[in-house]
Amino acid sequence: MQRETLGHHISRQFNEELEDIRNRVLAMGGLVEQQLRNAIDSLVQDNSELADDVMTTDYKVNALEVSIDEECVQILARRQPAASDLRLIIAVIKTITDLERIGDEAERVAQKALQLSKVSGIKMPKSSLQHLGEHVLQMMHDALDAFARMDVETAYKVWREDRKVDDEYESIMRQLMTYMMEDARAIPHILEIIWAVRALERIGDRAGNICEYVIYLVKGKDVRHTTAEQMEREVMGHLRRDD
Amino acid sequence: MQRETLGHHISRQFNEELEDIRNRVLAMGGLVEQQLRNAIDSLVQDNSELADDVMTTDYKVNALEVSIDEECVQILARRQPAASDLRLIIAVIKTITDLERIGDEAERVAQKALQLSKVSGIKMPKSSLQHLGEHVLQMMHDALDAFARMDVETAYKVWREDRKVDDEYESIMRQLMTYMMEDARAIPHILEIIWAVRALERIGDRAGNICEYVIYLVKGKDVRHTTAEQMEREVMGHLRRDD
Repeated sequence: MQRETLGHHISRQFNEELEDIRNRVLAMGGLVEQQLRNAIDSLVQDNSELADDVMTTDYKVNALEVSIDEECVQILARRQPAASDLRLIIAVIKTITDLERIGDEAERVAQKALQLSKVSGIKMPKSSLQHLGEHVLQMMHDALDAFARMDVETAYKVWREDRKVDDEYESIMRQLMTYMMEDARAIPHILEIIWAVRALERIGDRAGNICEYVIYLVKGKDVRHTTAEQMEREVMGHLRRDD
Repeated sequence: MQRETLGHHISRQFNEELEDIRNRVLAMGGLVEQQLRNAIDSLVQDNSELADDVMTTDYKVNALEVSIDEECVQILARRQPAASDLRLIIAVIKTITDLERIGDEAERVAQKALQLSKVSGIKMPKSSLQHLGEHVLQMMHDALDAFARMDVETAYKVWREDRKVDDEYESIMRQLMTYMMEDARAIPHILEIIWAVRALERIGDRAGNICEYVIYLVKGKDVRHTTAEQMEREVMGHLRRDD
């Protein structure tokens, strides 16, 4: 009996640890989301204070990454998790890497916003930039939501969104190329905008990565490097089994 | 005695598994290195066959990533490794992610080489491109070498190289910007070169990541997000302890 009580106790404690780690990933995600929000606003509203803010909170995200990573390794060493618990830890280790890199991309956008705020008269496709920014912000938000609720259907939907982001990206790039051809003196500044747009597009890719980890976590199957059709079969197979 | 023999047997088998996984990482690294070699050559020698080759071997790298990842999870579940064995598995999981992304960047370079091979008369700073390419190729090679020999001193040296790569990158970018300002019609093509240069620069970053994992593996300390001074103290501390 005593051993059983101990077992229950340990298992409750372990569950609390896993819950804690999930919450910390979501807290890190919330922080990166705020960074991205500020980075987009700093770019389209030409607000250098917001841009500064993104750049000075970067260390918080980095510290969270290192500390969650450390916690995962501790759990692996002490708890020797198996099956879905093990997959959770692996998914967390990968997710926080992508979150941290999304933070880096947000910082890049803010940096470009700062540089652009120093010059005037730059032609900038603000509404398209805003739209792309909101799109990847939503993707990132939904990817974290899918992670929180272990929701493969949402994960799959978000993953598919990335194609639309790529189309938006291509369209903005064409526009910026025209601006460069029209006014050679603006080229260095438009290149700054191009880097910001590229960073936003990469954030969409990384939100897609997080969705792949969610599907791996729930389904126990690695869906990286699969086509949309294979991915859909995987996810739909899951839905059928649940219905 | 019997139990001891069994223990030895299991431990020998486990060591073989770890050795096998290290060898597979190195094999994957060798494949990506070859891809990068071909991508660089395809760009500076205007060789579209080589570029095609890079793009068609991509699936091999992806398959290796998924399979090594799976092997790591199996080992975590079955062997419940601790201390340095656990760190090795974590380092492998992270290293193969970066290797796969280096493969993606090499593919990007090859794609740009293919697009550029279709137009003639494009001004391209070939010798600078070649130099940057060789530099990141060497970094990647040395990072894998440091991984193979668990050599933190080499890892640190390679990690420091990334600054020089960044300087080379900046210098090529300035050159390409001048080309764009001189000839507006060449802008779309020069942008292709810019994406290739950017991909090479990112490979330097990723080689640096691998070096951080090697230091983590050997020293048991996470050195991401640290300054060069902190990193040096860590590595030199290690060297002193070894002397």
